Amino acid sequence: MFGGERAASEELLERFLDAAACGDLALVTSLLSNAPSLLNRAGTNGWTALMLAARNGHHGLVGALLQHGCDKSLLNRSSQSAFDVAKFWGHTHICRLLLRPDPSLDPDQLSSTPVSQEGKRWIPPQSPHETYFSAEPLDRLSAKRPDQDWVRSRLKGPQTVILLFHRLSPMMRDQDGDQEGESSAMQSRLCRFSHKEVEDLLERPGSVLVFLGVERRRPPPSAADGEPRAWFALGLDSESEEELLKRSCEKHSRFAQNAHRDLLRLSEEEAGVVAQARSVLAWHSRYSHCSTCGSVSRVEEAGHKRSCESQACISHKGVHNTCYPRVDPVVIMLVVHPDQSQVLLGRKKVFPSGMFSCLAGFIEPGECVEAAVRREVQEESGVLVGPVWYVCSQPWPMPSSLMIGCLTVAMTTEINVDQEEIEEAQWFTRQQVVDSLLGGPRAAFTVPPRQTIAHQLLRHWTGLSANL
Amino acid sequence: MFGGERAASEELLERFLDAAACGDLALVTSLLSNAPSLLNRAGTNGWTALMLAARNGHHGLVGALLQHGCDKSLLNRSSQSAFDVAKFWGHTHICRLLLRPDPSLDPDQLSSTPVSQEGKRWIPPQSPHETYFSAEPLDRLSAKRPDQDWVRSRLKGPQTVILLFHRLSPMMRDQDGDQEGESSAMQSRLCRFSHKEVEDLLERPGSVLVFLGVERRRPPPSAADGEPRAWFALGLDSESEEELLKRSCEKHSRFAQNAHRDLLRLSEEEAGVVAQARSVLAWHSRYSHCSTCGSVSRVEEAGHKRSCESQACISHKGVHNTCYPRVDPVVIMLVVHPDQSQVLLGRKKVFPSGMFSCLAGFIEPGECVEAAVRREVQEESGVLVGPVWYVCSQPWPMPSSLMIGCLTVAMTTEINVDQEEIEEAQWFTRQQVVDSLLGGPRAAFTVPPRQTIAHQLLRHWTGLSANL
Repeated sequence: MFGGERAASEELLERFLDAAACGDLALVTSLLSNAPSLLNRAGTNGWTALMLAARNGHHGLVGALLQHGCDKSLLNRSSQSAFDVAKFWGHTHICRLLLRPDPSLDPDQLSSTPVSQEGKRWIPPQSPHETYFSAEPLDRLSAKRPDQDWVRSRLKGPQTVILLFHRLSPMMRDQDGDQEGESSAMQSRLCRFSHKEVEDLLERPGSVLVFLGVERRRPPPSAADGEPRAWFALGLDSESEEELLKRSCEKHSRFAQNAHRDLLRLSEEEAGVVAQARSVLAWHSRYSHCSTCGSVSRVEEAGHKRSCESQACISHKGVHNTCYPRVDPVVIMLVVHPDQSQVLLGRKKVFPSGMFSCLAGFIEPGECVEAAVRREVQEESGVLVGPVWYVCSQPWPMPSSLMIGCLTVAMTTEINVDQEEIEEAQWFTRQQVVDSLLGGPRAAFTVPPRQTIAHQLLRHWTGLSANL
Repeated sequence: MFGGERAASEELLERFLDAAACGDLALVTSLLSNAPSLLNRAGTNGWTALMLAARNGHHGLVGALLQHGCDKSLLNRSSQSAFDVAKFWGHTHICRLLLRPDPSLDPDQLSSTPVSQEGKRWIPPQSPHETYFSAEPLDRLSAKRPDQDWVRSRLKGPQTVILLFHRLSPMMRDQDGDQEGESSAMQSRLCRFSHKEVEDLLERPGSVLVFLGVERRRPPPSAADGEPRAWFALGLDSESEEELLKRSCEKHSRFAQNAHRDLLRLSEEEAGVVAQARSVLAWHSRYSHCSTCGSVSRVEEAGHKRSCESQACISHKGVHNTCYPRVDPVVIMLVVHPDQSQVLLGRKKVFPSGMFSCLAGFIEPGECVEAAVRREVQEESGVLVGPVWYVCSQPWPMPSSLMIGCLTVAMTTEINVDQEEIEEAQWFTRQQVVDSLLGGPRAAFTVPPRQTIAHQLLRHWTGLSANL
């Protein structure tokens, strides 16, 4: 190529990449039709058109580039793919596009045909669940909860699934890998019962039944009543584990012994169901009395409300949060050093030896998310932080937290640990974090398991650079 | 200018703007020293270097451009200033820089001298409070709450401020505009009492005292004990309003009659204090009994904990959320039409005539923020939404919500209102929203007041365009 040709080619590439960055679909398409080789070419910093479109949230353009067959596996100079870039900037709809197996699928279908032709039932686009416990395979149908007849009829449905919980632990079994093509990474599976198999347990004193929702998938053609399958959780505290386990025909059935460990072995879909069920059952187990007058309260609305039995109680006037399950918002944050090459992690006394994690704490009354982040970091580590960015959230059903995950940048670096809250806090370099995420002999510390939002925040940060 | 010169000048501008977009401080500085006129020049889309640096979160570069005296009032073709752009992208630390009155202040001071020389007390950078009720003028000092001696001594401090609440309404008075230089936009002010003035009330049955924190500002030189001023809230329910009002020497003192209206008249700082105080007092008023066994519970930790009086209660083993104030997370979201030119707003039956607002609802157990947004929009309006972005959050002390504000994009447009939740929902154009925000005769509907997060989300969206 002669000098002049090279310059013209570089200029064309620059125009093409600019158009991609700006989301100019018409110009991108026109340039590509004249020079198809532009499709996968990168600019000086290693960024392709796909990365730039993903960076700036241009959903339609990403779809068009994929349809042109562009290579989504290319990496920029910071080893980030277009997916990494989209994920960092929070463009989850673009992440979904980039993860789709079939690039020839028209991206516009996302907005034009989200409703299936047959059942007017929405089939959500296949997507990675941002965090463990946050999958929502069931439609909660909350408006149906007060309709006792409807709930009862769904409970008796031929396809209905009932999960058994003993003192907040679900009955589960070792995964035998023969079911519905799940990946081999899953290790446990919830035991599923029909109404007939547990009918007698529904009448036991202290048992609590919670309607969880109906499957979003359309019912199989074999479904006897053509209704989507309903799911319930049945919580039992006074029965013996042995008696309950006898009902399972499956080998190796057991109740989770250690929720923090065992629940993390479920598939993402089942973990999502358990997150709802366990939080609501935990609430019933601690909120059996009216907090306003002390009377016993009764279960209503298919397990989603408790009303005071005393008719004189003022909780019957108006709407009160005393009647509904608690969700406790928590901030969990990765504190980035002002030089952006290190992060602050701490360890609580109860952590396994060698483990460090993100700082975290409950949001207090009258605080916004950002203020809670600043207060908690200062209280626990003595470090003062400035800007705060929301990254993702995670329900954590032990018993009922909503973890709000953030990144924040430190304004001071001296650590002064509050010994009550954490026993040690330390700055770790990017390399130390990467080595620890990879595990193995070079790991400077143990990271929390991949199912935790702390792990996700660490992963997220390692993918973050000034090039993003 | 000849053609060649113009091309060279355009090329220089392009390099300059690219460097600003990438955060290349060295290149920007070098180009500026050779061609100072670049400073305020805009590219083809009207974006200046300041806007590009603000867009991409380059804090140091924004500071450097401001030091060079760049014009921060310039607007791009979408009428957005660099501040609008930084705010949209959530770079609050850059917003702060852009709002600073003195551009000659070294931006690096932010990270190098956040701690004052004298008192090791952090003086937070002047910043606009993102949302009403979220200001944090007090340091909550939560670790001090269990130290009864310390709390008692602070209560009796000569500078200590005690706020009186009657049935969750603070005593306040009409603003006379002569105090501490507050702006004329404020209309009401909290009545402040000393320990001596209300000492007898502390012993009244049913009164609840809550330690709120100490002022972040250093004490004035006249402070008798050199300690930062402590703030408390005293909640009284059985006394008569008249008796309590007699204690105020100030004219026009009154208890807020309508919290939703009257509390919005406070300054941002006082609103932040009231957000904490009212939420905690509301919790005491509804959670006087142990929800696990029904016994009466007693106040501990300076008003931030309640423990069951029955020693046999299992709530004494381990840590339980039953003992701590509730914070109920809520999602509130502005649903943007797929064509991005309209937004979906709804009205509840209880709304004032003509008012429309963002859809909203409580986050349920086992839901992440994004899932709650999707469920609530579908339940209330029948519209299905895809991607979700966090914008900002707001504590709402009626009684104790945490509003998590999001933008989301609709994937379907047909409205099917759930009559239980809202009575009407409607798509409004950008022009209709702008007219309504401005008020006046062209307003198509009434927007919620500026202190609400719904108002802020609407304002935020009107500043958003494909050009951002």
